Amino acid sequence: MFKGLSAFPLTPMDEHGIDMPAFAQLVQRLVAAGVDSIGALGSTGSYAYLSRAERAQVAALAVEQAQGVPVVVGIGALRTRDVLALAEDAQKAGASGLLLAPVSYQKLSDDEVYGLFQAVSRAVSVPIVVYDNPGTTRFEFSDALHGRIAQLPHIASIKIPGVPADAAEAQARVQRLRAVVPAHVSIGVSGDALGAKGLVAGCDAWYSVIGGLWPQTTLAITRAALAGHAEQALELSNRLAPLWSWFQQKGGSLRSAATAAELMGLARSPCLPLPLHTLQGADREALAAMLKTLDLA
Amino acid sequence: MFKGLSAFPLTPMDEHGIDMPAFAQLVQRLVAAGVDSIGALGSTGSYAYLSRAERAQVAALAVEQAQGVPVVVGIGALRTRDVLALAEDAQKAGASGLLLAPVSYQKLSDDEVYGLFQAVSRAVSVPIVVYDNPGTTRFEFSDALHGRIAQLPHIASIKIPGVPADAAEAQARVQRLRAVVPAHVSIGVSGDALGAKGLVAGCDAWYSVIGGLWPQTTLAITRAALAGHAEQALELSNRLAPLWSWFQQKGGSLRSAATAAELMGLARSPCLPLPLHTLQGADREALAAMLKTLDLA
Repeated sequence: MFKGLSAFPLTPMDEHGIDMPAFAQLVQRLVAAGVDSIGALGSTGSYAYLSRAERAQVAALAVEQAQGVPVVVGIGALRTRDVLALAEDAQKAGASGLLLAPVSYQKLSDDEVYGLFQAVSRAVSVPIVVYDNPGTTRFEFSDALHGRIAQLPHIASIKIPGVPADAAEAQARVQRLRAVVPAHVSIGVSGDALGAKGLVAGCDAWYSVIGGLWPQTTLAITRAALAGHAEQALELSNRLAPLWSWFQQKGGSLRSAATAAELMGLARSPCLPLPLHTLQGADREALAAMLKTLDLA
Repeated sequence: MFKGLSAFPLTPMDEHGIDMPAFAQLVQRLVAAGVDSIGALGSTGSYAYLSRAERAQVAALAVEQAQGVPVVVGIGALRTRDVLALAEDAQKAGASGLLLAPVSYQKLSDDEVYGLFQAVSRAVSVPIVVYDNPGTTRFEFSDALHGRIAQLPHIASIKIPGVPADAAEAQARVQRLRAVVPAHVSIGVSGDALGAKGLVAGCDAWYSVIGGLWPQTTLAITRAALAGHAEQALELSNRLAPLWSWFQQKGGSLRSAATAAELMGLARSPCLPLPLHTLQGADREALAAMLKTLDLA
């Protein structure tokens, strides 16, 4: 399950609630494209901004619409108590896996993060993906801590925030991590600009934001890389270079992906929870033009 | 109200709930000592880890126990929708002021943070303290943004994360901020190691963690500084130098303050929400010994 393309759909919402039909449609597009798994309520799915009840509803709808495609559900929260409740909800909704980031308000220590994963691994019966995303959690995993956590029951995969841009360094980075985790634990890359490089460097999976909007494009890269056609995968990814530099300029992919969904008619505007905003004005026009040029409109 | 010592009590809790009697006792101690205001549900009060219902209960209890001492209640949350609901709850509970930090999961832009304060300032009828704490929010306020936000209705104070250690630089820093905000907006220092320096440099208030546990000690420093006895204030603060370096070594004051409360019999152990832990083992013993030496046990 934790191999190939895991596509992360947005959860379109406004101040009045979640647009469930729009979310269902996003999931249906992923199923139709043949993604390997669906990451519901990831950072892209704005899990951190939703109530427990809303998260349970989204998880259930994702599983219902996924038609048997495995759904991994984000269960991150500031407090262990809440994470455990969310894990239970996600399992009841039929999640095939749980995605857990050490979300923080007070910066966490290694022991605190280990304790969180230990508590969750004891309480659940489905696989857990360790979600390493210092950009949102402010927590930096060491490889040693990854190694300790990966020994816990139910740990099935690690979602790393990216790989070095240099091919040899990327390979070395994946091998260093691989050396400290059990063989059954998969390694998945995120940070879409580095998706192809991560797969070519030996990652098993790509946990992808753009996969949630453009699954065919992302699957083509993934399939090429995992079939050993490294050059083809990198070339397909390089065609999207303007998008990668755009994400970097705009401080990440969420607002741009959400704006793209609005532009493509897949979500009403606005589709992000305040205080977050999708792009407006000149930025919005520039993104629209870029998507046309890249055949992503 | 936003002058002098604002003392921030812990909210003692475990996985089963909040220890309301212990919280009430902490507030009573502050009232007895004569603090100028009480900051309930600050970072020290672990607001981010509590449910809306729990926060409403804590706010109500704080006001009830404060016997007329103004209570400022933390209303920060990831989502504007939730901040507005928390603001309403806090006002219903009788809060004299609202403390608002731009809490983030996705890193926020200046415009998003401005939009948050604008929405809240339109909805409330009590003063707002702008809570600038990049250590927990990952948001860095520019002075220009402080200036824009301070023009909004109901903005009454800015809680800054500290001042430079050098006296002249500290004074310059406070003056730079003072120059861009209206005269009715007070400036309060936090980061307890810099409390005395901040007051001496011209801050109006000290938003203090240690004030929540040792109000007399903290009041003595505050009163000396605000009476113009700079040397005395700095000397009283310097007596606590071992505590300041301890906080720095331990990555902040929360876990140490919570451990001190446990050691002093003011809270049961554990008193922080998992995954956070109070200090154990050698660290706990070292802190206990230090508090004895400093007459804070």
